[in-house]
Amino acid sequence: MKIIRGIKRVQAAVRDLRKQGETIGIVPTMGALHAGHLSLIKQARRENDRVIVSIFVNPTQFGPNEDFKKYPRSLRADSLLCKNAGVDIIFHPGVGQVYAKSYKTHVIVEKLSDVLCGEFRPGHFSGVATIVNKLFNIIQPDVAYFGQKDAQQAIIIQQMTRDLNMPVRIRLMPIVREPDGLALSSRNAYLNAEQRADAKVLFEALEKAKTMIKQGTVNSEKIISAMRRIIQKKRSARIQYIEIVDLDELRPVRLIKDKVLVALAVWIGNTRLIDNIIVKAPKH
Amino acid sequence: MKIIRGIKRVQAAVRDLRKQGETIGIVPTMGALHAGHLSLIKQARRENDRVIVSIFVNPTQFGPNEDFKKYPRSLRADSLLCKNAGVDIIFHPGVGQVYAKSYKTHVIVEKLSDVLCGEFRPGHFSGVATIVNKLFNIIQPDVAYFGQKDAQQAIIIQQMTRDLNMPVRIRLMPIVREPDGLALSSRNAYLNAEQRADAKVLFEALEKAKTMIKQGTVNSEKIISAMRRIIQKKRSARIQYIEIVDLDELRPVRLIKDKVLVALAVWIGNTRLIDNIIVKAPKH
Repeated sequence: MKIIRGIKRVQAAVRDLRKQGETIGIVPTMGALHAGHLSLIKQARRENDRVIVSIFVNPTQFGPNEDFKKYPRSLRADSLLCKNAGVDIIFHPGVGQVYAKSYKTHVIVEKLSDVLCGEFRPGHFSGVATIVNKLFNIIQPDVAYFGQKDAQQAIIIQQMTRDLNMPVRIRLMPIVREPDGLALSSRNAYLNAEQRADAKVLFEALEKAKTMIKQGTVNSEKIISAMRRIIQKKRSARIQYIEIVDLDELRPVRLIKDKVLVALAVWIGNTRLIDNIIVKAPKH
Repeated sequence: MKIIRGIKRVQAAVRDLRKQGETIGIVPTMGALHAGHLSLIKQARRENDRVIVSIFVNPTQFGPNEDFKKYPRSLRADSLLCKNAGVDIIFHPGVGQVYAKSYKTHVIVEKLSDVLCGEFRPGHFSGVATIVNKLFNIIQPDVAYFGQKDAQQAIIIQQMTRDLNMPVRIRLMPIVREPDGLALSSRNAYLNAEQRADAKVLFEALEKAKTMIKQGTVNSEKIISAMRRIIQKKRSARIQYIEIVDLDELRPVRLIKDKVLVALAVWIGNTRLIDNIIVKAPKH
């Protein structure tokens, strides 16, 4: 496994692989890898001749009061995990190389970027779309792997890829969870013991929504209220949003008839966690 | 020469060329081809195994009160010109195929897009950057050819390509002019005889600027005033802007020390014409 920092060097490496006719899968990450990332890497390993993992904590997707500086960085552990998982190349560029001083370009996916997390993190999804666009251009992968944990991100990237005719196939992989249901996240490392215990409430609320939908509740407001009640029981929890939206436009669904995304963001102490499920209403 | 309308079909054609190891040059156009376009095609012909000309009147780069509907379309004449110039493929997609109903993505090159023409055509350069981004992704050319006539456009595309790590080399080719100096433009077809005669004043004003700079005038305001006086003599002419800017950031230059772009937009009757020169100040 190679760890490559330079853009030109990774491009040269990719060019060599291409010449040999090899297919390339990319797993774009910010590092601090966990079993969620690993599931993406494993899938990439199964479906491509070569697997590239990018590790880049992208400053442009963090707001001024967000956790860019303290975001966990663990290249040594990440490398070991990648190596054991059969990754061929880790691409780990420096910030100054990714964003030159004269940098001016932004990719914006309208509508999808201003709702859910986007409402509370202005500029976040433009930062995400732009860095992923750059990574796709640098690596020119056949397939790119994203986790459903960041469902909005994945939907935005799918939209961007389709809209800009990027020759990359996007694969969305299921959320990997702890035994108590907490979705794996690099930010779980911020939680203390009490908060960690409280954090399972996100999944409990989502399970409640799923049960209600499957049992025939169609009124989103009713479901969201029930979810609120569950989360509010936890001392350290503060809800940022709970929403039920359609999967194409991420617009709120009032009466659930088809497949919906139930998504939430909850502060547990000073840590903002997100989670979601996709549920299909039963046929009537 | 093939004329291909479908995105998937042109992608398949390009894939075949790539497999044979052939290099591809693209000349993105809105059709209504003239000798200016032809100079780009000829250069592409010299430097690549295959030449693709795209012909697409891109609605998103026209403002609501602009000439999208009446913009000249002449596929038959364009095809003949391309065939004679040795073009391999004309890519001529339909609007509905380029922009699906669910389309949401925009590429924005900050700062460079809001000045000069951008000040008077809000959204124009985002439209341009986005369609060129799409064309680059669809065709994946080695080199793309643009005319200096649309200098701001070319500078924006250069910036986008660099910022987004697109693997395309941008070539900027000189303006082709009529014998009296009028820059070739598809929009010259809108001019009546009197307007056509007046239109040469754009070049006369630029020549004046060049002479003044070469003779040591460094004060931009002085040069712009002299240019104004020349243009204002023509009955049908109405100045939209005259500016002298640097080539990297397109910021106004007050005292000319190095290379500058002298750019102007002038209404001749109901036709908006643009022109420019790049001039280097003499060493002191």
